[in-house]
Amino acid sequence: MRLKMEAFIKEKQKEIVAALEEVDGKKFTTDTWERKSSGGGGISCVLQGGNVFEKAGVNISVVYGKLPRSAVLKMRADHKNLDPTVESLDFFAAGLSMVLHPSNPMAPTVHLNYRYFETMNDDGSTQSWWFGGGTDLTPSYLFDEDAIHFHKTIKEACDGHDKRYYPAFKKWCDDYFYVKHRGESRGIGGIFFDDLDDKDPENLFSFVRDCLDAFLPSYLPIIEKRKNMPFTPEEKEWQQIRRGRYVEFNLVHDRGTAFGLNTPGARVESILMSLPLTARWQYMHAPAPGSKEDRLLNILKKPVEWV
Amino acid sequence: MRLKMEAFIKEKQKEIVAALEEVDGKKFTTDTWERKSSGGGGISCVLQGGNVFEKAGVNISVVYGKLPRSAVLKMRADHKNLDPTVESLDFFAAGLSMVLHPSNPMAPTVHLNYRYFETMNDDGSTQSWWFGGGTDLTPSYLFDEDAIHFHKTIKEACDGHDKRYYPAFKKWCDDYFYVKHRGESRGIGGIFFDDLDDKDPENLFSFVRDCLDAFLPSYLPIIEKRKNMPFTPEEKEWQQIRRGRYVEFNLVHDRGTAFGLNTPGARVESILMSLPLTARWQYMHAPAPGSKEDRLLNILKKPVEWV
Repeated sequence: MRLKMEAFIKEKQKEIVAALEEVDGKKFTTDTWERKSSGGGGISCVLQGGNVFEKAGVNISVVYGKLPRSAVLKMRADHKNLDPTVESLDFFAAGLSMVLHPSNPMAPTVHLNYRYFETMNDDGSTQSWWFGGGTDLTPSYLFDEDAIHFHKTIKEACDGHDKRYYPAFKKWCDDYFYVKHRGESRGIGGIFFDDLDDKDPENLFSFVRDCLDAFLPSYLPIIEKRKNMPFTPEEKEWQQIRRGRYVEFNLVHDRGTAFGLNTPGARVESILMSLPLTARWQYMHAPAPGSKEDRLLNILKKPVEWV
Repeated sequence: MRLKMEAFIKEKQKEIVAALEEVDGKKFTTDTWERKSSGGGGISCVLQGGNVFEKAGVNISVVYGKLPRSAVLKMRADHKNLDPTVESLDFFAAGLSMVLHPSNPMAPTVHLNYRYFETMNDDGSTQSWWFGGGTDLTPSYLFDEDAIHFHKTIKEACDGHDKRYYPAFKKWCDDYFYVKHRGESRGIGGIFFDDLDDKDPENLFSFVRDCLDAFLPSYLPIIEKRKNMPFTPEEKEWQQIRRGRYVEFNLVHDRGTAFGLNTPGARVESILMSLPLTARWQYMHAPAPGSKEDRLLNILKKPVEWV
């Protein structure tokens, strides 16, 4: 499964980057990095200041090495078969993660991440394993048809495997991407799951494959429709304020970001690639009651069932 | 002391706001707020989009009420005489906090905060008390003479009370305002202290008063010299990238911000007033070796003794 997942995310990275270059008209720059202290590395593809994307990153990483005991104890909450007495534990992790911030305020930011995690016995055989990930949409201006299309595409990918997945993972996404101190969601959701090992690995790999395959069909029609829409300077400013909230979630609440930043030898530039190129914090900004901006805020306060 | 500190910070807020309005040419807007669930409130003075200041906030707050047991247990680390068996504890806190983000990239951001904290017995008498606070400077372009002037002014205020204060609090500041995941300081420091109760309250109040009195002399000459300096679009962009690092420190590492955001009923807009109006995250940005930007980064990696 390690090799399969690695090969799959490499292939998907190329496919997604090629499709996004088609949309944008500019090329991504690619850099390959290696973990200094331990095993593995990654490939970061980034497009900054594009025609369509203000900042877009499509990263894969394949890392392995030894987890310290503190990390093992934390993971035991969800994986009871991990031995709490070990000093350290061999692990392997492979994932693709992506954040796209378009320039046009009518076009939504999208985030996606799928990963496979494994712990190993001393002889290199698999001990525990699981899949995690999801995808979610963050508009500054909400077009209901976009939200419906996005959720519908993901739901179909989920339903092909397990009818319980979409409702459960949609709720998990709403719960996870919640900017607690603002009392609002980061965006209009999608799906999120972690520690998924309820079926055999082949089965779940095929589920994750279908989720990743659903990305381009879920997002391309939206970005094509929105990327050239006219907008006012005030609408651009509202987008910048919403980008500030995105930064707040990622830096204050996102467990993945916190985990990354606290990992010695972590590649900070790849972790913070998720942050927008520009953001704004305006004291006591409040949209006019009944405006489009106000409607978005109200929807973010109470998740909607889009399909 | 409660009333004295309250009266003093109110007076200083007016004085500082008036002096900054003189520098900027535009007026601050003032709003007064009250804590809904419990006692106290504050006065926030904010100037946004000024001639000199992109965003400037000068806040005071005077709050009191009951600290839950979890908060009492945390504070016991530094105040052993707090009773760990109580369900809750009456407290009082009064402070002035300020962050000024100038528009001109040659003019440094400055932060200041001084506060008095008290816990009370059931009969309302004082149980524990302490002072905390400090001030620090964050330039995008470093003029050594500014750093020297800033530190010298603060050192003089400290030396009038205790020769040990400046060296100890300067180091505390360097240690506290450290952006760990970047391996660099937020700025070129100043002073920082907390839980200060090593002299009698009157003595320490007079120390904090001298520190606050030193603010205008420490900063006004710098902002006057820098506010109208010419700059290029590239220098403005560098300032925006440095503002991004400011956001990273405040949202990821600052204990005060984290404490505030996790306090139920907290006034989020006043807590996040410290964030700049605009910020930027540029993937893999690295200044040219030997440039002014590069020199700043090197200095931020290793604190300097400015006086």
